[in-house]
Amino acid sequence: MQLSRLLSSVAPPALEGAEAAQRHLDSLTKPPGSLGRLEEIAVRLALLRGGAPEVRHPVIFTFAADHGVVAEGVSAYPQVVTAQMVENFLRGGAAVNVLARQAGARVVVADFGVVGPLGRSPDLVACPIGPGTANIAAGPAMTREQAIRAIEAGARLAVDALDGGADLVATGEMGIGNTTAASAIAAAITGAAVERVTGRGTGVGDATLGRKVAVVRRALEVNRPDPRDGLDVLAKIGGFEIGGLAGVILAGAARRVPVALDGFIAGAAALVAVTLAPAARHALFASHRSAEPGHALVLDHLGLEPYLDLGLRLGEGTGAALFIHLARAAALVWREMATFKTAGVSSEGASAAPSETSPPNRIAPAKPALERE
Amino acid sequence: MQLSRLLSSVAPPALEGAEAAQRHLDSLTKPPGSLGRLEEIAVRLALLRGGAPEVRHPVIFTFAADHGVVAEGVSAYPQVVTAQMVENFLRGGAAVNVLARQAGARVVVADFGVVGPLGRSPDLVACPIGPGTANIAAGPAMTREQAIRAIEAGARLAVDALDGGADLVATGEMGIGNTTAASAIAAAITGAAVERVTGRGTGVGDATLGRKVAVVRRALEVNRPDPRDGLDVLAKIGGFEIGGLAGVILAGAARRVPVALDGFIAGAAALVAVTLAPAARHALFASHRSAEPGHALVLDHLGLEPYLDLGLRLGEGTGAALFIHLARAAALVWREMATFKTAGVSSEGASAAPSETSPPNRIAPAKPALERE
Repeated sequence: MQLSRLLSSVAPPALEGAEAAQRHLDSLTKPPGSLGRLEEIAVRLALLRGGAPEVRHPVIFTFAADHGVVAEGVSAYPQVVTAQMVENFLRGGAAVNVLARQAGARVVVADFGVVGPLGRSPDLVACPIGPGTANIAAGPAMTREQAIRAIEAGARLAVDALDGGADLVATGEMGIGNTTAASAIAAAITGAAVERVTGRGTGVGDATLGRKVAVVRRALEVNRPDPRDGLDVLAKIGGFEIGGLAGVILAGAARRVPVALDGFIAGAAALVAVTLAPAARHALFASHRSAEPGHALVLDHLGLEPYLDLGLRLGEGTGAALFIHLARAAALVWREMATFKTAGVSSEGASAAPSETSPPNRIAPAKPALERE
Repeated sequence: MQLSRLLSSVAPPALEGAEAAQRHLDSLTKPPGSLGRLEEIAVRLALLRGGAPEVRHPVIFTFAADHGVVAEGVSAYPQVVTAQMVENFLRGGAAVNVLARQAGARVVVADFGVVGPLGRSPDLVACPIGPGTANIAAGPAMTREQAIRAIEAGARLAVDALDGGADLVATGEMGIGNTTAASAIAAAITGAAVERVTGRGTGVGDATLGRKVAVVRRALEVNRPDPRDGLDVLAKIGGFEIGGLAGVILAGAARRVPVALDGFIAGAAALVAVTLAPAARHALFASHRSAEPGHALVLDHLGLEPYLDLGLRLGEGTGAALFIHLARAAALVWREMATFKTAGVSSEGASAAPSETSPPNRIAPAKPALERE
């Protein structure tokens, strides 16, 4: 999965299908528009797919890596927790495992550069880009070449899953210190003030929060990332797992498969991805707005309106897992509801006069530029 | 199910279990509080149940009835649509059927007083209180005796389901004209101005909306319901299905089983129920905030914060069906996540120092006052 080829294959879906999609939804036995944002999801899914939406085989990518910036004391947890949580993912005991099982989603756990010791497991995908990033408060997180490798590795995992039939990809992550990197990325790309995009992460107190703001500011001063160059931002102030998730996002967008973003870290990965290929935005679904204050700013910048607002601040892909139920609901409404005509329900007086009798299988030509390989 | 006995059996759950419940959640491998409102749901479910929450057998009660007030031209659809939609529910083609199937919920469809002709079906529960209500703009909707019968019939259906193992009950409805009745109830009980609680229902235009506001105002002037007497409000300006849902709410609360409220009509039923038995509030979960403007005011009055905000305005139980995924997620997190101790994950530096090793099965004595019968 070569980055240049990946980027050139990201294109927006054909938008001329939107009217036909809404017409189908208006033919179903409900007042037009009465399913609110579920209808918006259905239309977006249908446009991406070029026909009746389907969410049968979602895959959550939970990528883990460590961050040299923990040396600055920015987290409530020791670095070893990254490795310990990876083991927890592999045993199925973490929140994302529980919520993914409920949602019928597969979780792909990948090591993008965890420092702590990891036991061997056939379920752990090894993509280590390096032994954790360097401390961004002192210099660049990684080389530009490592940034490219991280994105390409993430994209490759997504393409494997898509070739295996995945019809929705979701982003998750684990990495002690990664809200600090995400805050730096958010400040660099959105241009927002550092204190507006720096929050308590796993739950640090006031003193640590003050230190974290200073560290993010220092990371930006020391590295001076170019906000128009996603690779430069990722290399200088990002993280290996964030690069991997940017790869998942780009691969999903290239194949016109919906990409469910989790929280703040996923938002930072999306900023990197969209800076590299603006059309990737069309595939993005903001699962939820997290409690991390910078997240709302990131979603604004991406032009996304979140679907859930539950004060989540865990990451791992947990918010994306909850969103899968909504995406699947939208797809099932499209596919399984009766129409006014088939159900013999009067639509007189309704603002639409629907005429469809069966769900359109094709609403627009679906020609993903990135072919299976 | 005698009303007086039902009302006297509604009591709040023992609240001393709240601390133990939060302690269990804090022992799980995630930063304390990081699952946000999912944790709030888990604590409330655990308090109701007096132990580990479970959402395995949810039941959605979709009650249908007609409303004499349609004579005033307040709806975008003809009255016959109530009966047509009941047939659609029975064939499984409506939105609530699709979303209930997805959520693993059973739908109980009951006729509380539909005017239009209904085919025979073994799946339709017959509880007709009358051939639709009378026009509330001209006099009372029903007699006080009918109001009592409607509540008792709804409660009986809920008790049957609870005896069959239901562990969550949800409210749904269908009735052309019922947003007009719900607006009148909302204005009467909350004291809010009529125009603030009267909206477009299934999607009426400006002229019909203006007429609807005038009709609600007239219904209140003609009937002068006593806001402290839920039965008086229900009888004078309510609906048969609204009474039935108040019965479901009261029976669920009496048995300390979570009650997932759907939208605006369900909110009106909850206002009636809570006016009759204030402690019922402890069992209520506001699934979502609907697009109907009065709904937010109703939820404020009930002291409930909605979990979803998706612009839904369909009713039937659709919002409650979506909420079931969140309630089940909360229960699964409680039951299936590993603890810091069992997973060998460091919790140093976290604000809590958890010690639990297995989920408490009992956090407080669970003695529902309303015994099985």
